[in-house]
Amino acid sequence: MCEASVYIEREGSEELVLESVDVLEEEGDEVRMVSIFGEEKRLKARVKRLALVNHRIVLEPVEPAG
Amino acid sequence: MCEASVYIEREGSEELVLESVDVLEEEGDEVRMVSIFGEEKRLKARVKRLALVNHRIVLEPVEPAG
Repeated sequence: MCEASVYIEREGSEELVLESVDVLEEEGDEVRMVSIFGEEKRLKARVKRLALVNHRIVLEPVEPAG
Repeated sequence: MCEASVYIEREGSEELVLESVDVLEEEGDEVRMVSIFGEEKRLKARVKRLALVNHRIVLEPVEPAG
């Protein structure tokens, strides 16, 4: 299977958000992700980097506009 | 291998951009992608949707601000 683990970058380190992610969508300033087990999470973030062969997706937080 | 094909949505249909993509990064209003063969492409776009089990990444064009 080709699902990936999703991490978010905060203060220079990467924090695991959700494993075994199949579907990920950007909706405005949110990212919605769904795992192959049907678990769903939403975060105020955007995609920074995918490394699919390594099964990694890295997000970065979306800062409030200011 | 878990690479994916990248498509861009234009006028309601999806156009293939690059196959066998491993790494994809968002850099400002551009997406940079690199295939497992080392082929690289850049587009003014953002990630709209990933469907990893189906090996699909869909981008949407970034419109000029205005």
